[in-house]
Amino acid sequence: MRIGVLTSGGDCPGLNAVIRSVVHRGTDVHGDEILGIEDGFLGLIEGRARPITHEDVTGLLTLGGTVLGSARVQREKIRWAVENSRELAANLGIDALIAIGGEGTLTAAKLFSDAGLPVVAVPKTIDNDIDATDVTFGFDTAVHVATEAIDRLKTTAESHQRVMVVELMGRHTGWITLTAGMAGGAHGILIPEKPFDIEAVARMIEERFRRGKKFAIIAVAEGAQPLPGTLRFEHGQVDQFGHQTFGGIGTRLAIELENLLGKEARPVILGHTQRGGTPTALDRVLATRFGWHAVEAVHKGAYGHFTALRGTEIHLTPIADAVVQLKTVPQDRWTESEAVL
Amino acid sequence: MRIGVLTSGGDCPGLNAVIRSVVHRGTDVHGDEILGIEDGFLGLIEGRARPITHEDVTGLLTLGGTVLGSARVQREKIRWAVENSRELAANLGIDALIAIGGEGTLTAAKLFSDAGLPVVAVPKTIDNDIDATDVTFGFDTAVHVATEAIDRLKTTAESHQRVMVVELMGRHTGWITLTAGMAGGAHGILIPEKPFDIEAVARMIEERFRRGKKFAIIAVAEGAQPLPGTLRFEHGQVDQFGHQTFGGIGTRLAIELENLLGKEARPVILGHTQRGGTPTALDRVLATRFGWHAVEAVHKGAYGHFTALRGTEIHLTPIADAVVQLKTVPQDRWTESEAVL
Amino acid sequence: MRIGVLTSGGDCPGLNAVIRSVVHRGTDVHGDEILGIEDGFLGLIEGRARPITHEDVTGLLTLGGTVLGSARVQREKIRWAVENSRELAANLGIDALIAIGGEGTLTAAKLFSDAGLPVVAVPKTIDNDIDATDVTFGFDTAVHVATEAIDRLKTTAESHQRVMVVELMGRHTGWITLTAGMAGGAHGILIPEKPFDIEAVARMIEERFRRGKKFAIIAVAEGAQPLPGTLRFEHGQVDQFGHQTFGGIGTRLAIELENLLGKEARPVILGHTQRGGTPTALDRVLATRFGWHAVEAVHKGAYGHFTALRGTEIHLTPIADAVVQLKTVPQDRWTESEAVL
Amino acid sequence: MRIGVLTSGGDCPGLNAVIRSVVHRGTDVHGDEILGIEDGFLGLIEGRARPITHEDVTGLLTLGGTVLGSARVQREKIRWAVENSRELAANLGIDALIAIGGEGTLTAAKLFSDAGLPVVAVPKTIDNDIDATDVTFGFDTAVHVATEAIDRLKTTAESHQRVMVVELMGRHTGWITLTAGMAGGAHGILIPEKPFDIEAVARMIEERFRRGKKFAIIAVAEGAQPLPGTLRFEHGQVDQFGHQTFGGIGTRLAIELENLLGKEARPVILGHTQRGGTPTALDRVLATRFGWHAVEAVHKGAYGHFTALRGTEIHLTPIADAVVQLKTVPQDRWTESEAVL
Repeated sequence: MRIGVLTSGGDCPGLNAVIRSVVHRGTDVHGDEILGIEDGFLGLIEGRARPITHEDVTGLLTLGGTVLGSARVQREKIRWAVENSRELAANLGIDALIAIGGEGTLTAAKLFSDAGLPVVAVPKTIDNDIDATDVTFGFDTAVHVATEAIDRLKTTAESHQRVMVVELMGRHTGWITLTAGMAGGAHGILIPEKPFDIEAVARMIEERFRRGKKFAIIAVAEGAQPLPGTLRFEHGQVDQFGHQTFGGIGTRLAIELENLLGKEARPVILGHTQRGGTPTALDRVLATRFGWHAVEAVHKGAYGHFTALRGTEIHLTPIADAVVQLKTVPQDRWTESEAVL
Repeated sequence: MRIGVLTSGGDCPGLNAVIRSVVHRGTDVHGDEILGIEDGFLGLIEGRARPITHEDVTGLLTLGGTVLGSARVQREKIRWAVENSRELAANLGIDALIAIGGEGTLTAAKLFSDAGLPVVAVPKTIDNDIDATDVTFGFDTAVHVATEAIDRLKTTAESHQRVMVVELMGRHTGWITLTAGMAGGAHGILIPEKPFDIEAVARMIEERFRRGKKFAIIAVAEGAQPLPGTLRFEHGQVDQFGHQTFGGIGTRLAIELENLLGKEARPVILGHTQRGGTPTALDRVLATRFGWHAVEAVHKGAYGHFTALRGTEIHLTPIADAVVQLKTVPQDRWTESEAVL
Repeated sequence: MRIGVLTSGGDCPGLNAVIRSVVHRGTDVHGDEILGIEDGFLGLIEGRARPITHEDVTGLLTLGGTVLGSARVQREKIRWAVENSRELAANLGIDALIAIGGEGTLTAAKLFSDAGLPVVAVPKTIDNDIDATDVTFGFDTAVHVATEAIDRLKTTAESHQRVMVVELMGRHTGWITLTAGMAGGAHGILIPEKPFDIEAVARMIEERFRRGKKFAIIAVAEGAQPLPGTLRFEHGQVDQFGHQTFGGIGTRLAIELENLLGKEARPVILGHTQRGGTPTALDRVLATRFGWHAVEAVHKGAYGHFTALRGTEIHLTPIADAVVQLKTVPQDRWTESEAVL
Repeated sequence: MRIGVLTSGGDCPGLNAVIRSVVHRGTDVHGDEILGIEDGFLGLIEGRARPITHEDVTGLLTLGGTVLGSARVQREKIRWAVENSRELAANLGIDALIAIGGEGTLTAAKLFSDAGLPVVAVPKTIDNDIDATDVTFGFDTAVHVATEAIDRLKTTAESHQRVMVVELMGRHTGWITLTAGMAGGAHGILIPEKPFDIEAVARMIEERFRRGKKFAIIAVAEGAQPLPGTLRFEHGQVDQFGHQTFGGIGTRLAIELENLLGKEARPVILGHTQRGGTPTALDRVLATRFGWHAVEAVHKGAYGHFTALRGTEIHLTPIADAVVQLKTVPQDRWTESEAVL
């Protein structure tokens, strides 16, 4: 068969490992021809693609980013492409499509599938917010990077009764912050699912200092929100990219805590270091397995499904199950994290 | 309640994180007193234990090894202790016991539990060979260390058509080797579950060189076995500790491949680096959750159970389910790994 | 002899390794008694100290921070202590003092030495700004952490023509930024020694995008300054700790570059992750050698000197040579870094 | 100018970083054309080379190995090439040659230079055994890898009074073992420069156990030698590649110590993991600076010289100074290492 593969959405450690695995399984075992579609759905629309051979994927297992590129596509263009999906597939000469991406990509994949394009999806997000799979690749790498940072902060903050605020990724869900916070032993964990009371955070830190501790580390997700009316710091301007002109929640929180506590508080903003670089071993294996099962799904004709990890096994699951709702941190996982506070 | 905690068997990254979590959850939330029993079941027998407070577990999250120590105990001594378990518990004044260990420990824990001692077990093994749990802490750290080594070998082996043989842990099961081999992209994976034909391995490497590749990496579990009669190298002597006097399978395989291929083959023996050092973020979180749920199990009276990960949740599972058989690599996981060969 | 040892100033990976080395060399070889003075010169003034034995320094080689603590002391108090240095030394019963610290500590050490207290100094700063020594411990660790971050950014920034701004430590000197910028292959390096023209930076990035590159990474020292009048962004308020209420230069630069380029620019603020955690191998060896030579210096009576690395050897050097001026990045090192722009 | 560049000898982290730096400096600043000669002097002899542009070296800063390849060349062939060096240079059309390699390469470079070929050399060896330069790139990376392994062993060896023997690279010199041994806090350091008495090593370990310590780590260079007559273990056979058929010194030492001590001793053989993978930040900067200065040397006409680090500066030094003798560990560095024993 001739199988197209594309990556869509923000990048994520492990994307290249999926591509490599699709090529290995498809070409070596099934004799498929794999066509790499450039820049996500844009390449599908514009007919930009190149064959990828076993040789081409050498070294991709450990490489961050995506060699196929990725691009944002307007909704209307996607709608047009869905209507013309058979022609687009015919133009490229592909029998099936493997689409690797996040929630938006899965939603689009479902539209294409419903319109008759044979699509299998592979879920991807460092945020771990896709439902119906235990976890996605990229998440463990993000947690690994965040945990290393918290580890390093722990030995330095002690000097002068100092508070460290580590801002981590997660606009809508707190998985990275919860997990890295637990792994690093942060003293406060603030996530979008649980609006926080800045004064309660300050009291907790003061209580900690009263017990003789010399520092406190607060892990905060970029999307964490103060309870209405509790963060007194005035909002700055927002620029054309939607960024606060005085920095994000990490910076704001550090300044606010300095004022409340009368102690130095310093922000650490890890930003995109969390979504770049070599994937962890776990993420490489998960990505490789997803690629393997995506090819098998194509050969089984399991279109409209995506590869989901449940327990130790990969299940082919209807894409619809993944896109109903965002997977947020449930109450019982939140309760468990209190062990570290 | 007064809860005893002990660690038993070989050490494993994450043991200290369990202890810390038990203390945090027990003392901070339930008002328990936690008694650290020294040197595993030996300390139980000899009545050696000390209280552990919240303060005592500072820094344990990231520390390898076990601060409680561990020791081997003869079977007969265990049998005696089982018969006298109530007295031993009374001597220490404990209401319940949390036993952290591998298969042997779980088996002992079941005996104690059957004899009336209130025991909850926490599974531990870097080998991932305990049944009824998706994974155990320590395994991800071992895989991480092994994968980093394979990564480093990949850029150096190219110079002179060289073969690298990486010997990894796993006497009875191939989980570490399979997983690190997939994560590192090893070209051959040899595990105890699948006896290997040395000449087939050599042919595969020769085929690889014929395709213009300049090196090959073979990941071999220490317990991997050649098919009867296929490894021509003569066995050396065995010393009092059961070690081959000429080194293990890694060294033997490298020598044999040199002879078969006429190319340089060098062994790398990672040995105990795989079971030491700071746990990965994933292992710390799993260990912390296991400790948390073990304390909850005690307070629920779920004795005779152990903490098992299934999917994303911790289930309290009868210890009996864990000790029926070793969890070996199943055929379908083995088939998936062929993607990297 | 009875030798006091203290650590002073901000913490730095390797401090504990010096303490360990002083104890090993002093007690094991010379039969000295080592007295650990708490909280830097404050402990000297207040007579707070405890003996440290070989046993006490187990594990210190790899531990960040300082087990002796550190505290800021007002200049007047130091002056008073200098005048009363003999009494203070007599109170503690020490024959000599080893003072480990940065420029301020070395200056104080010189005052004490001139006043007759037998002092040997060990230089410490992650900033590498102490003159008369090739390098100080802590610097390589800071560069290592910063370089890892830049490495990770390189594979993620490619997706959408994005600019990454990495703010690194260095208020007065650009050593960390220059070195990590070269090691990570940053496309722009901004340091305090070379005031920058924001529009020239923007043009350089535009030129890079014109050549088809998809991202740019700018490494900026926290103390880097725009040429007067070139950074149009208005200054925000400054809080009681001297921190900009909208974040530091990294945040400002990202916002300004977004405006100039019309492309997304995101800041990464590594902050104190650069001065915490386990020291690199190089820093551990340097710290160990410094401690070794400090003890030898005491036994040679080389008071008023500090341990300086020149080439591969440690030279005992008059403290005066270290404190005349800050060691800044010279023109020829700056020129070399252009290779990476 | 048209400058040829070649890499010769065993590979070493940082080789690619030198190539990248030569191309950046040569093409961007001087307008040179850089010709990459394949497989070391073999490519020079056989006229195999390709132009390398700025674009071609993207990503080389962090990549281990060498993109130019390397090959062993017989002495006679080198002699022939030296005699015909002008013709060989004319064939490739190069005005000058930058040769990157170890002692053998430097010796060859000197022969070519004496014969009239304009050559500048860049020293390379993970062993740090080249004289007249403080250090070479690759060494810090090797030490980093070895130190990480020792760190991990430290927390695992404690369980059962166990001895760990870590075999490190260094056939003729003990720099890696001495430095990583100090950095990791090994309890015994055995190097080629100091033949060891196995019974003295055993006594030292016994003494350590008597003091209540639960483990010991011995770092041994692959070229370390027992004092004549002191290692009782019989030599095995040597295969066609010169490898002991029962493994190297690490395996032998572990077995011998088991017999002498009656305690378990396990070998760890890091092998080629020490010379592969991403270079440390320090090695990348050193490699980059060497490449920069090599290009400058060509433009200054400083032929017959090599780039040497002395203190913080790169000096162009006659190649003759590098090849007179191997740089071994001097007595005073050995004495310093006793701090950790």
